[in-house]
Amino acid sequence: MPGKRATRLTPDQRREQLVQIGLEMLADRSLDELSTDEVARRAGISRGLLFHYFDSKRDFYRAVVRAACDRFTAATEPDGSLEPVAWMRAFITGFVAYVLEHRRVYLALVRGAAGSHPAVGDIVGEARETLARRLRDGQRRLGMPDAPRLEPASRAWMAFAEEAVISWPLDEDDDAARDELCAFIEASFVSLLGLLDRPRALAPR
Amino acid sequence: MPGKRATRLTPDQRREQLVQIGLEMLADRSLDELSTDEVARRAGISRGLLFHYFDSKRDFYRAVVRAACDRFTAATEPDGSLEPVAWMRAFITGFVAYVLEHRRVYLALVRGAAGSHPAVGDIVGEARETLARRLRDGQRRLGMPDAPRLEPASRAWMAFAEEAVISWPLDEDDDAARDELCAFIEASFVSLLGLLDRPRALAPR
Repeated sequence: MPGKRATRLTPDQRREQLVQIGLEMLADRSLDELSTDEVARRAGISRGLLFHYFDSKRDFYRAVVRAACDRFTAATEPDGSLEPVAWMRAFITGFVAYVLEHRRVYLALVRGAAGSHPAVGDIVGEARETLARRLRDGQRRLGMPDAPRLEPASRAWMAFAEEAVISWPLDEDDDAARDELCAFIEASFVSLLGLLDRPRALAPR
Repeated sequence: MPGKRATRLTPDQRREQLVQIGLEMLADRSLDELSTDEVARRAGISRGLLFHYFDSKRDFYRAVVRAACDRFTAATEPDGSLEPVAWMRAFITGFVAYVLEHRRVYLALVRGAAGSHPAVGDIVGEARETLARRLRDGQRRLGMPDAPRLEPASRAWMAFAEEAVISWPLDEDDDAARDELCAFIEASFVSLLGLLDRPRALAPR
């Protein structure tokens, strides 16, 4: 009975449950299509009770997107005690694993209407900034010089990595293809950022 | 007098004028913020007359986005008689020039809410496909083998090039910086797609 389940959870647990349901539903719809009626129904509570935990639809959307972004930034935070190369590989592997596993949520938030949804743009933007800072951290660990164009080049590399993961033809649990993808992204990191010092042209200019 | 100007244009000229006003307005707002009232006002005609030329707001939006995409694909179509390297450079230079010149329209359509705006997603998608076909054409001209991962790698490179142009710090008319950016994108093309055959790792695996 819904009423019975409702009394069992603490307010924090209930909020967490509702956010989790929102995250699951984002896997096959955009943020705009995320119905709070449906979320409440799946949780076995009334819509009114949902709005006891969240001030508004916007507040609920923000909580769901924040949870997705927190998981994303946690997945791409390597153990700080790793050696530089292992650290950078852990960053890349974490990024690939998260995007593969949460591909639809990732697309919905980063590239879908929700990517620039006015209610959550700042949260997605913050997660991007966290990732960019982490990448710069990795570059410093590797002793890469702070080239004048390193920042835009790094942003471009992130866009490259994102699109590579999204486009790569992969069956689930195809570990060889996943390793190949990680190796390709690692190689692109080595090559692209190295180009800042010594560009390679199609032919002598 | 608005009425007077309205009688001077042929229906085709009027449509073109309205689309042009829409394109100019997209430079500082998203598609959703593009008011047909404002477009009609700028053209000196009534809102009713605008809807004589376009069936609906959606129809007008589609015409504006189609015009933007047509210009984009035209800007990235090199002269077919060029040698392969010159052809590929013309493709890159055209891409960079278009994105720099129409940066805000590009962002509004490709990355903003409008990028996945249900009314225009298919038009933007078609333009992306045209560009992807053109890139494959360039690769064939250069004699690049049709590697199994060439397609996803090329998509990733396009995302890289897009983000590089958007992030690169550039003042208008800074030709040296623009040349540097084009050289960096050309170098990335050479390196990234070459990686499909011989990946470079951070350290021996």
